[in-house]
Amino acid sequence: MQSAKMRQTSLLAGYSTAGKAMRAIARPAVSRRAAVVVRAEGEASGPGLEAQGPNMTALKDVQEIMDILPHRYPFLLVDRVLEWEYGKYAVGYKCVTVNDNFFPGHFPQRAIMPGVLQVEALAQLGGIVMIDPSEAAQQNNFFFGGVEGCRWRKPVVPGDVLMMRCDVTKFNKRFGICKMAAKAYVGKDLVCEAELTLVMGK
Amino acid sequence: MQSAKMRQTSLLAGYSTAGKAMRAIARPAVSRRAAVVVRAEGEASGPGLEAQGPNMTALKDVQEIMDILPHRYPFLLVDRVLEWEYGKYAVGYKCVTVNDNFFPGHFPQRAIMPGVLQVEALAQLGGIVMIDPSEAAQQNNFFFGGVEGCRWRKPVVPGDVLMMRCDVTKFNKRFGICKMAAKAYVGKDLVCEAELTLVMGK
Amino acid sequence: MQSAKMRQTSLLAGYSTAGKAMRAIARPAVSRRAAVVVRAEGEASGPGLEAQGPNMTALKDVQEIMDILPHRYPFLLVDRVLEWEYGKYAVGYKCVTVNDNFFPGHFPQRAIMPGVLQVEALAQLGGIVMIDPSEAAQQNNFFFGGVEGCRWRKPVVPGDVLMMRCDVTKFNKRFGICKMAAKAYVGKDLVCEAELTLVMGK
Amino acid sequence: MQSAKMRQTSLLAGYSTAGKAMRAIARPAVSRRAAVVVRAEGEASGPGLEAQGPNMTALKDVQEIMDILPHRYPFLLVDRVLEWEYGKYAVGYKCVTVNDNFFPGHFPQRAIMPGVLQVEALAQLGGIVMIDPSEAAQQNNFFFGGVEGCRWRKPVVPGDVLMMRCDVTKFNKRFGICKMAAKAYVGKDLVCEAELTLVMGK
Amino acid sequence: MQSAKMRQTSLLAGYSTAGKAMRAIARPAVSRRAAVVVRAEGEASGPGLEAQGPNMTALKDVQEIMDILPHRYPFLLVDRVLEWEYGKYAVGYKCVTVNDNFFPGHFPQRAIMPGVLQVEALAQLGGIVMIDPSEAAQQNNFFFGGVEGCRWRKPVVPGDVLMMRCDVTKFNKRFGICKMAAKAYVGKDLVCEAELTLVMGK
Amino acid sequence: MQSAKMRQTSLLAGYSTAGKAMRAIARPAVSRRAAVVVRAEGEASGPGLEAQGPNMTALKDVQEIMDILPHRYPFLLVDRVLEWEYGKYAVGYKCVTVNDNFFPGHFPQRAIMPGVLQVEALAQLGGIVMIDPSEAAQQNNFFFGGVEGCRWRKPVVPGDVLMMRCDVTKFNKRFGICKMAAKAYVGKDLVCEAELTLVMGK
Repeated sequence: MQSAKMRQTSLLAGYSTAGKAMRAIARPAVSRRAAVVVRAEGEASGPGLEAQGPNMTALKDVQEIMDILPHRYPFLLVDRVLEWEYGKYAVGYKCVTVNDNFFPGHFPQRAIMPGVLQVEALAQLGGIVMIDPSEAAQQNNFFFGGVEGCRWRKPVVPGDVLMMRCDVTKFNKRFGICKMAAKAYVGKDLVCEAELTLVMGK
Repeated sequence: MQSAKMRQTSLLAGYSTAGKAMRAIARPAVSRRAAVVVRAEGEASGPGLEAQGPNMTALKDVQEIMDILPHRYPFLLVDRVLEWEYGKYAVGYKCVTVNDNFFPGHFPQRAIMPGVLQVEALAQLGGIVMIDPSEAAQQNNFFFGGVEGCRWRKPVVPGDVLMMRCDVTKFNKRFGICKMAAKAYVGKDLVCEAELTLVMGK
Repeated sequence: MQSAKMRQTSLLAGYSTAGKAMRAIARPAVSRRAAVVVRAEGEASGPGLEAQGPNMTALKDVQEIMDILPHRYPFLLVDRVLEWEYGKYAVGYKCVTVNDNFFPGHFPQRAIMPGVLQVEALAQLGGIVMIDPSEAAQQNNFFFGGVEGCRWRKPVVPGDVLMMRCDVTKFNKRFGICKMAAKAYVGKDLVCEAELTLVMGK
Repeated sequence: MQSAKMRQTSLLAGYSTAGKAMRAIARPAVSRRAAVVVRAEGEASGPGLEAQGPNMTALKDVQEIMDILPHRYPFLLVDRVLEWEYGKYAVGYKCVTVNDNFFPGHFPQRAIMPGVLQVEALAQLGGIVMIDPSEAAQQNNFFFGGVEGCRWRKPVVPGDVLMMRCDVTKFNKRFGICKMAAKAYVGKDLVCEAELTLVMGK
Repeated sequence: MQSAKMRQTSLLAGYSTAGKAMRAIARPAVSRRAAVVVRAEGEASGPGLEAQGPNMTALKDVQEIMDILPHRYPFLLVDRVLEWEYGKYAVGYKCVTVNDNFFPGHFPQRAIMPGVLQVEALAQLGGIVMIDPSEAAQQNNFFFGGVEGCRWRKPVVPGDVLMMRCDVTKFNKRFGICKMAAKAYVGKDLVCEAELTLVMGK
Repeated sequence: MQSAKMRQTSLLAGYSTAGKAMRAIARPAVSRRAAVVVRAEGEASGPGLEAQGPNMTALKDVQEIMDILPHRYPFLLVDRVLEWEYGKYAVGYKCVTVNDNFFPGHFPQRAIMPGVLQVEALAQLGGIVMIDPSEAAQQNNFFFGGVEGCRWRKPVVPGDVLMMRCDVTKFNKRFGICKMAAKAYVGKDLVCEAELTLVMGK
């Protein structure tokens, strides 16, 4: 039972030293090369479908994302980072649920994730790419400067996992201007792509 | 482009006949034996991780779930049904995102899905099992009567996909009382289990 | 008028020393044996019904509850504690209003308090029982481990005052495991009962 | 168990004929002279405090109030009507909970019900007084025209039951102008009073 | 007083014939060439600044916009249309307030309107341009297909009035593809510009 | 581009020294005699209507207002202060948008700003008048004590800019009681007026 307790997260975590220890334990172990776990389909003798769901190991979980980004509810749109190389690229995702706060208005008769929020999610992931962990104390800033070549190709709906990748394509260090190729997928399907311009503060 | 348009969902869907046609088209094709798509891990020459995300085909999508359940935002906690046999069992899931409305309060310093909402999600899936599609016009009702043997084993956090299974274990037709074995998983890990009692109205 | 001012609460209370003084004054006096005030029914010559409403003196008001529990809007479900003995039991309640955030979704056509939120409210009251005030600095933690024998007996609706009692029935100090008998009432009617397992952190 | 089922409310109530029947059953019985139930304080051998909470019988419950008023979440501020005489007066109340949607902003450091929302609650009760049930089909309208002599005397906080009474003092039928003496109490304490002007449409 | 009543809007408007009449009266008169009212600055003997605020006459008010667009709270981002020519262009605006639902998360320490929501507001205005009023019964649909050349030039903050203009630049009727030049201003300052692609359904 | 960057606001502003510098820059310049910018109507050769929107220079922007008032979302109802003289008067306004959180409930069929929230906005502006900037460290408090002579004259709807003025008419320093004449306008039209009583704490 003690071990169950250890895996369970304290309600008061974050308020005490004990809480922090438990929080560390509660976080899934981190491996540099995160991966979607392989699943065998229709394995008759194996576990049921319910125990074959995705299990995407976090390189950065949502608590770490909140240490990096100032965004908060209802405008934090990245749940987990799976791959990340500073100044190069990142892979991350957002779970899309009918309980997302925007669905009652978009639309009452049919839940579709607004395209502009997919772009926002991509830009938030892009911001995470550009945060230099060695300069965390200096709090490098960034803002969203522009978008080119944005296309939405399929509707994103509750139950989708919006997988995203941002690759830095150009970085003018002097002016702090960064271009990124950004793509979002549901399964194998490309649902949104855009070239983003972020401007980094000093 | 026309085909892209067909796949894209109309903003005004649900308000017109045309909208309904498009809505039908926009829904993913349905196959009776839904399955989590197999992914090869670390395939060097294959697509990046971002295009290997889960793609869980809906047997019932969220629009169909909303036709069955009266629950709405912020208390509809099933996003998709993957397997379903009337009066027997169902497999379905909820995507968990930091944008879920309950996270700002549970807790400000650490986002953990409330255990009772996992139980609620299981009960909603259980309700879907017991709705007889051939008696839809009669609007069979159900309500949540009790819980036994409920255990929470691991914290559920943003980015998790909460896979659920409900199996009917007993059904007293005369009194409309139904018992269900309910389990929730994240990946292979059992995170919550309970025996639920639902009472079906007439 | 000065006295009226004293009873009225400062808008900026909590931000200043003056504010704290006023806050102290604004809180209802605390008596160890809190009680629902006796009302004479239908007293012809007495005050109207409107001045005979319940007046439940707080042993712990919501500000004190927020000092103990990390839960916040929209997931803090105890408004006031009336009786409390550390490690033994507590009596407290939640006011149920149509303005509770969950009613728009549960259900659009009929407002019924979700049963699982009654259980959550009971567990929060249970957590308050187990917080040792003499070790406040050490921030003992707790989490919700399980539920047995949960029954919902009547619907709880807006306008109800959900009175709750949690009694510790077993406490294994070594493993920090605590069992509680929990009951919720509306008036004399038992509406929900359950045996809760809380696990205390260190 | 059948009887338990009857008392329990259908999740799908309001969607079906069966639902309506159950809804009728689920509503507390109505008595013209509603009353706050008398409680004996400190009765040693009687039930615990938790089973002595208020039990205010509805003359109009929140479903009936929603049939009369167009207000909805988050701006419906009357939970139950206890006494009512068309064109004369009404007594009703709102439960105040920390889960009321306005408390996070009023104020982050201290939950106090905004005074203006007490006045709004009184005006909504006043509107209920002036709706002629025999002309329901004609949908008489009303709006809030003015306030005189409004005073707030004590802070209203989570856990309070805001009891209200509105008495018609003047009604100019030709111009549809109605004056009301409105008072709000917590226990015996007058917390807010005002003279309201409502204008009735045709 | 009767006239005051006429100008005031019925609380029950929209539920009755009387309500509709009052609703018509309550709407500001419509003139085809809407204009921001001229204000003389610092006119010593004139009215105070408080009576010189903008008064932007609606060509389409928010009720009419809601008849056209399926978007609802919290994702309807056009408050009023000032100029409009079917298939050609429109001018409209959104009032930006600290009470906009996205500001608590963007950002807790500083309220800035998300750039992507400015683009969404422009696209909603663009959709209004393309709705053919003579085919209202056929419910022409549209969706957001892409964005080119999007630039954000200045932060938009609470208290700003976001004035927007969308001009159709290309319309391929056969494929229903429409390009628009879209610009948003605060005062004279261009704050956002983009080329939008909308795809019209049939 | 660097200058554009300077005008743009850092996403992380407020978290770092750099952020604070940028925040200062991002704020519009302050002039003591703020004014609504003059607009020429129908100037044929001038800019389009979209570039003639109001541009109300902030004497106090919403960040400064949040430094003064404890109110937060969803109960902060002043967006900008245009004129202000300590202990004398202030002019400020709130932008009214269909995205204001109260409109879904007031009313589902027709968006009208609740009259009582206009009074609340006026009282918040009144509070700003009475905060002595030289005693900021002492955190003078105030609360809303009463209202006289309140009249609502026209409905306020999405797209309106609610301009407000509060003038101190009496101040009893000994008891801290302050009376204010408060008026709200949309364009030239007086929409709400009231005499407010604020009580200042020490």
